[in-house]
Formats: sequence, C-alpha cells, structure tokens
Amino acid sequence: MLLCDIGNTTYNFLEINTNTLLELNYKKSVDSFSPSEFVQKIYYICVNQKIKSKLKNLDNWIDLSLELNINNYYDTMGIDRIMACEAIKNGVIVDAGSAITVDVVQNGIFSGGFIYPGTIAMGNAYKNISQALSYEFNYSLDLEKLPKNSQDAISYGYLKLLHSEVVKYDMDIILTGGDADKLAFVFPNARIDKMLVFNGMKKIIK
Amino acid sequence: MLLCDIGNTTYNFLEINTNTLLELNYKKSVDSFSPSEFVQKIYYICVNQKIKSKLKNLDNWIDLSLELNINNYYDTMGIDRIMACEAIKNGVIVDAGSAITVDVVQNGIFSGGFIYPGTIAMGNAYKNISQALSYEFNYSLDLEKLPKNSQDAISYGYLKLLHSEVVKYDMDIILTGGDADKLAFVFPNARIDKMLVFNGMKKIIK
Repeated sequence: MLLCDIGNTTYNFLEINTNTLLELNYKKSVDSFSPSEFVQKIYYICVNQKIKSKLKNLDNWIDLSLELNINNYYDTMGIDRIMACEAIKNGVIVDAGSAITVDVVQNGIFSGGFIYPGTIAMGNAYKNISQALSYEFNYSLDLEKLPKNSQDAISYGYLKLLHSEVVKYDMDIILTGGDADKLAFVFPNARIDKMLVFNGMKKIIK
Repeated sequence: MLLCDIGNTTYNFLEINTNTLLELNYKKSVDSFSPSEFVQKIYYICVNQKIKSKLKNLDNWIDLSLELNINNYYDTMGIDRIMACEAIKNGVIVDAGSAITVDVVQNGIFSGGFIYPGTIAMGNAYKNISQALSYEFNYSLDLEKLPKNSQDAISYGYLKLLHSEVVKYDMDIILTGGDADKLAFVFPNARIDKMLVFNGMKKIIK
C-alpha cells in the first residue's frame, strides 16, 4: 500500500508492505517528480492546489480528504492538520514545520487550534526588527526564570509563551513535523511521532 | 527643560516649561535633524550608536545613561527599556514598538523581561510562511476560546500567548509605545502611559 502526503515542496511517501508490515518512508521533490510515473493505487492528501488539480485526472491517485467527515473542522484548515487530529483520541498536537500548528483533540473531536510561526520564520522576524535581536534560539533555556540577557529574552518570548499555552491543557503532548526534535528540549515529556499524519491516513483507509 | 529619547528613526522630544508645567511633545527625523541646531541643555538617552558618538562632542547634550545604576539591568538591554523600568515601582511594562518588550519591576527592582515581535514583524512572519496566513490580527478575539478559523488561529497564536504570560504576574500592566492602543483591546485593564520613558528620565534628572 502506498500513501502520500503532498506539501508545498515535497511528495512524502509511505510504502507499506502488507505481508511483512515493513514501512519505507521517502520524499520526492515537487519540481522533479511527475505523479503519472506511478501506476499503482496511491492514497494521498495534498495542500498544494496546483498538484491537487493535476491528480484529479489520474484514477490511481485517491484523495483521502473526500473520505472524511470534515464537519468537525473548518474550511481553510490544512488537510495535514486534520489527518494528524484524526490519528489521536486525546491530546495536544504540536506540528513544527514552517509554521507551528497546535491542535487540541478531546474524545476524538477537534476542539480548536492555533498557528504560531515556525523556528525559521520567528528567527527571521526578530532579525528583521534589528540586528541586535539576531540570535539563535536557546532551546535549553530555563523556562522558570525571567531572562536577563538578549538571547534568552527572545528565546523566552518565542518558546516560553508557546510552552505555557501547550501545557495548560494538561493532556498528552505529541510533537510532529521537521522541528519536533528541537521542540523536544522545551517539551521533555512530549511524545515524538513523525508518522502522525500517515497514521491518520491509515485510519481513514480502514 | 528639554528631554530627548533617540531611537533608530526619530528624535522624540519633550519640552517642559518649568513655570507653567506645560509639556510639549514632538519628533524629528534622524535623517533631517542635526543635533547641533540646539544650543540649550538637553537630557537624552539614545539607542542609536551612530548618533550617540556624534552627541559625545556636544557639551549641551547630557547622556542620562551615565547617571544610572545599571547593575540591576544587563549589558545589551536598551536604555529606553531601562528608563521605562525606572519610571515605576511595581508592574509589568509592555512596550509595543517594532518589538514588544515585556519587563517586570518588583519593589523598584528589574526582575527580568522578554522580547516578542511587534505587530508588523509578526504579521510579516505569518505572511512570509504562506499567503494562506496573510491576515490582519483580530484584536477583539475571544481569548477564552480555541479558534476554529484561520484569522483567529494566527491572532490567538500571537495575542493569547502574550496575554497569558503578561497577566500571570498578577501585577499592574502598563502599556506604552506606538502600538499601545492596539494592545489595549487585549489588555482592557491595563493603563496606557506613552510618557513612561520620559517619566523615567525625569526621575533620574531629579
């Protein structure tokens, strides 16, 4: 079985050998890969509108967003966020990519969520204000202490504020996305699950 | 008496008629104003290093940063932030300019503070991630409810996280800086004091 999570820059594939249950995860660039190369059945989700309209004409590409009860979500919510929510019953999902999306799921129902800049976007925001704020974030910052130096002052502004909001729900925290490992320093009790979106897709296929 | 708070783009003057106690506040652009135009005594603070070195050669410009016990603060902390802290005995100062600085003062002592992107910088951070996040912030957002639409999802990410951190100290909140009026929607119980930096400067002069 072949699953594909299509973003703005990559096709992210998960190939599952249903006999051995071995899984193979690989990416292809949006610029170089042509979806008509594949003839087998592929279950996909796609946030890239241009690619989505291409795939509509290929019978072997199955759009999983059509198999979903989306009434619990909202119109402009990314289908990757929705699939991650479908993967869990209770918890706070922190998906750290170019943006950080934080979504709360209670008893299998999406309670709402918010969007925060990703690590690169936020670093650039500080840098663009002033060269005096051009620091790397300190992910091992002491979150219990108000800073008295510039690097910690911006790190606290970015990370502590996110931390306080995420932990206040007192639920399991699941980190996913490319920067999950960085945020693991800030959320030491969180579970990292980079397959969360695929897990949601598998659930829908069943 | 003439006070001047010099930033990266403007000279911000406060002229006090000591007989009538009338105060006149006006700005001049860093690009067009020449400090040698003025011959009277001027008490100033300056975060602009280029201008600061010019002013050293002008006897009538008195650098108030030299009159200060800066041991309570830290080396790279802006002198405008320090002066705002000097102005109060207890409270949380939210100075909303190109960056938002949040500083806590307890019994006249600076406890620490953090730096958050200003409204323009943060708006650009979201826009630069994706056109899908290109919204104006909703300052009348319901802070008690997890959002279920894109505009509120970014507004919550920006404003609620700031709000939670600022109110948790359970102290008086003082808003200052150019965007104080916008943030007043988020902090309805805060006091707006756009003269906070000048008030700190006056205290030091005494």
